[in-house]
Formats: sequence, structure tokens, C-alpha cells
Amino acid sequence: MQLFDRAAISAAVTLDQDALNAVEAGFAALGRGEAVQPPILSMAIEEANGEVDVKTAHIRGFSRFAIKVSPGFFDNPKRGLPSLNGLMMVFSAQTGLVEAVLFDEGYLTMVRTALAGAIAAKHLSRPDSRRVAVLGAGEQARRQVEALRLVRDIEAVDLWARRPQAAHDCAEQLRAQGLAVRVHESVRSACADADIIVTTTPSQQPILSAADLPEGVHVTAMGSDSPEKRELETSVLTRADAFVCDSRTQSERNGELKAFAGTADRGDGGGEVPFKVFELGRLIAEGQRLRLTPATITVCDLTGTGVQDTAIADFALSRLS
Amino acid sequence: MQLFDRAAISAAVTLDQDALNAVEAGFAALGRGEAVQPPILSMAIEEANGEVDVKTAHIRGFSRFAIKVSPGFFDNPKRGLPSLNGLMMVFSAQTGLVEAVLFDEGYLTMVRTALAGAIAAKHLSRPDSRRVAVLGAGEQARRQVEALRLVRDIEAVDLWARRPQAAHDCAEQLRAQGLAVRVHESVRSACADADIIVTTTPSQQPILSAADLPEGVHVTAMGSDSPEKRELETSVLTRADAFVCDSRTQSERNGELKAFAGTADRGDGGGEVPFKVFELGRLIAEGQRLRLTPATITVCDLTGTGVQDTAIADFALSRLS
Repeated sequence: MQLFDRAAISAAVTLDQDALNAVEAGFAALGRGEAVQPPILSMAIEEANGEVDVKTAHIRGFSRFAIKVSPGFFDNPKRGLPSLNGLMMVFSAQTGLVEAVLFDEGYLTMVRTALAGAIAAKHLSRPDSRRVAVLGAGEQARRQVEALRLVRDIEAVDLWARRPQAAHDCAEQLRAQGLAVRVHESVRSACADADIIVTTTPSQQPILSAADLPEGVHVTAMGSDSPEKRELETSVLTRADAFVCDSRTQSERNGELKAFAGTADRGDGGGEVPFKVFELGRLIAEGQRLRLTPATITVCDLTGTGVQDTAIADFALSRLS
Repeated sequence: MQLFDRAAISAAVTLDQDALNAVEAGFAALGRGEAVQPPILSMAIEEANGEVDVKTAHIRGFSRFAIKVSPGFFDNPKRGLPSLNGLMMVFSAQTGLVEAVLFDEGYLTMVRTALAGAIAAKHLSRPDSRRVAVLGAGEQARRQVEALRLVRDIEAVDLWARRPQAAHDCAEQLRAQGLAVRVHESVRSACADADIIVTTTPSQQPILSAADLPEGVHVTAMGSDSPEKRELETSVLTRADAFVCDSRTQSERNGELKAFAGTADRGDGGGEVPFKVFELGRLIAEGQRLRLTPATITVCDLTGTGVQDTAIADFALSRLS
């Protein structure tokens, strides 16, 4: 049994093409029905303003599967600690024995989340996309752009965030990577010239509306991952020519589809969505093309899946051992 | 962050009164509504005849919570490996940071499961219980008896198991502990003089029927912990004067109540059970007495709960650190 810390893991796994291929293969397996992905185990610890999620998946043919534990304790910054944390356990898919514990402190989650954004853009955005609007200024804001550069020739970033100082700090970091960056005071202005829009906020109210969408844009919404969060007005989803998500079940519960699941108050969310819902894995597995013209508007809602975790953990171990 | 292996853990934690008190306190907290206990995360890995369960719970006021991963890979014995395995991660309930990983290989599960049997008997069996019938001859057969001795003056054991050799081996181990042990060829004969009956098999068909129950007996059924398993005929449950379980939700899904949940084919299992269902934690919390006379027949179905895991992990760490 092997133990790896964040330093070792982040030295071995970076936002590169190999890691992207690994995560994309995970999505494709899910799309082919070759993955078992149970519902997320989620537990709130209200006294501490905390929650913990456990995700897992088994991909048929993979020799290992991962179980990821992601605690989020939102009073931690007051103590000088990060809100998000976590580790991944890797088990043999033949014997169930622990092969490794990756004490990555959420690093691999950051990687697989950024890569999922890139994979969505690879399959949905215009190939000539150059300009990305990013809403939000946390670590994923920067990482989503970094990952997008693996699949598109990104040259410019338009940034908006609720906290102007955070936006300016994030802009500096992106400029250091050779990108032309403008900080905007409104979502509308940030999105006006975008080929790709990425929403990466913990917002509980929609921040993006259909009126903000330029023709031919692709939107990746990766912020909403719990029943309380939401980034897109329903108009964005109904305006889109194609709506894709990483997992329909999860999108209805934790992601942007909950807006529709909720209106009918049925709880199960099924059947009430007034448009066709595609899943990213099937798109990849079946080579489906949803962008029919340069004017097509596509939206992809990412909530974060167990197959991504198993895929990136397996990839990490293949590099580490 | 601390790591402990099975040897260290089993040296620190044994089947004793302190450990029993810790697990009993966990049940009581659950009974008072002071625990958050999400549904079990369960994933099958069919190609390898394997499954993995993840259990957790947070007990309000506890400084730590555990997340337990229990893989069961049933072809492992062919490879000379144990079927069951596992580890527990212990997190701070204030910050979500990992405090320890207990690589206990299922040892603490063995302990908290045996203790739950003792706790059930403490609250449900006749105080003068001396004679226990054990159906099954695995490790829990022996451990359930060992734990029962913490709460009752057990003198004699009547043993039945599907595999006679296993029964004889188990009998030898129990005799070495100073008990009078008889091996029986039928369940009926094993149970004839029992004050307490413990079923501890992986059976998928009922092995115990109402006709096997002597007057005043207490039955603990701890084998069934998945949708496929079942040890008690429905007649045992309807014959009992009081039916108790560790978790009604889990008993309906994984335990003995599924027989009733199933008949109506409703899937949710609610409302169709033709008797009152008590939960062990509430019994303890409220000091409820279900044994009204020495002739009362009680049944307790144990499926294994996250509060037991958090309670025993917290106890283990308090002894280890």
C-alpha cells in the first residue's frame, strides 16, 4: 500500500494532454454504459458549516477504482485553513485491497474538473474559439483557462467576478501566462465577445442569462455542485441549441437542471425538462456532433462525477508507481 | 495526520465495556436525533464478484467523524486473500481535515458489530440469560458470544452451521474460552433451550422460523446486510412481541424488513409492515422497555450503521493517540 502527498502528486500530474485523454476515456466509458457510478454520498455537518461528499465509480476493464472524499468546511478560512480538502483512496478492482491513498488535498479534483471543462469545449465549442469569458475568480477560473488551452488556441480572457479585487488578482495570474486579459464590471460586458463562457462561481442565484450569450458561444457551467447552488438562468438552457451535462441525475439534483426539476415539485425531476438533455460521455462515445453551424449555442453543465475521479486517480498512480 | 495498522488498532481496542459504552452512546445519539447518517453508498463490481460499501455518520458534539470503506470481494479466498477488508478515515468535525487513517482491515467493523449484538441483548434479552444459540460459524459467531458475555452471564452455547466442520472448529474456539458448547445438526435443536439466539450467516434464504423460538427468547439477526441476504422467516417477525432494528431504512433495504417491503412491491417499503417497528437507538435514548414478561419474544435486526463506525473510530483514536 502506497501513500502519496500533494507535493508528489502535483509533480506527477499536471494539466496536460495525457491527463485529458485519461479523463475523456472515463467519460466515454460512462457513455458506453461501461461504468458503475453510484449516487454521491453527501453529509452536512451544520454546526461547523461543513459538508462532505464521497464519490466513486468503477470503469469496466480498469484494474483500479477510486473512492474520493471531499470535505468542504466553509468557516475554515477564518482559521487560516482552506475550505476545500480531500483525499482519494485507490483500490484494486480485482481484490478490493487498498493500493494507495492519495493525500492530494483536492489537487486531483482541481485537475479533473478543469479537464472536464476542456473536454466539454473540445466537443462543443467552435474549433476556432480564441476568446473566453470567465465568470468567477477562484482557482478554477484560472485552471479552466489553462485546461482550455489544451484544446483551443485561447488568446484572450474576459473576466468578471463578484469581488473586483479577486478578479484583478486572477487577471494578473492569467497575464503571466501570456494571455490578453480584461476585467469587466458586468457579466454582459465580459461575455459580449466570447467564443466560450465558463462560469466558475459558488453562486446560489443565476448570474448568466440568455441575453448575455453571443451567437455561436459555448457555455460551460461548472460552479453548481450542490442543491443550493445555481449559475444559469433557465433562459440560458432554453435558449441553447444543445444542453449537455456530465450526469443527468446529478444535474437534476446538484446542477443546473434542478431549476426544471424543481418547478414541478416532483422531487424526481424526470420528464419535465422542456428540451433534450445530452450527456457528455455519450456524446464522446458515439461521436455525436451537436454543433451544427458556427451560430449554434451549446451549454454544458458539469457537477463532477465519480468516473472522473477514478480516471484521474488511475492516471496519477500510473505516473507515480 | 496519523496512520494506524491493524496490529496497533487491535492492541488498543478490544471487546470490552468501554468500547461497548462508546457504541451504545452512538446508538443513543442516533435515537435522540443527534446524528446525521446518510444512506450507505454501495457499488457492485460484478466482474470480480465484488462490492464496496461506504458508511458514515456525524454525531453532534463529537469532535471527529469516520468514513468507512468496506470492500467485499468474494473470489478472494481462491487467491488466498480474505473476502472482507476495509479501512476507516477519521476527519475533524470542525475543519474536515483528515486526522487519521485506520487501516484496520475490517477489525473495527468486527468489534462494533459484535458490540451491537451485545447492546441489543442488554436492552432486550432476559437479564438471567445463560444459554445462547448461534447459527453460523464465521468469525462473528465467536465474537458475538464474546461480546454477549459483557452484558449477560453466558455459560453455554448451542451451535449450528451449514458446514459441520466449521461448526466444530468454532465450537473448539468457544470451549477454549470456558464455555459449554454443543454442536447441533438442526436449527430447531440448537435453538430449543436458548435464552438468546444469534443468527450470523450470509444466508440468502431464511434459516430461522417461528417454530424454532422458545418462549421468552431474544433473537439478534446480524447476518443480513444487503438486498440479497435474509435469515429470518417472516413468521419470526410476526411472532415476536417486539421487533427492533438498528435502522428502519436499512432494515427495509438490506435487512429483515425487506421481506415485508417486498411483498407490496412498492420499492420504498414504507407503511406495509404489519407490526410496530422500533429502532435500537430510540429504545436506548428513551429507556423504553419492550420486554414486559419473561415470556416476551424480542427480535433485533442489525444491518450495521454509520454511527457505530464513527463511535468506534472515535473511541479507537482516543485510545491510540
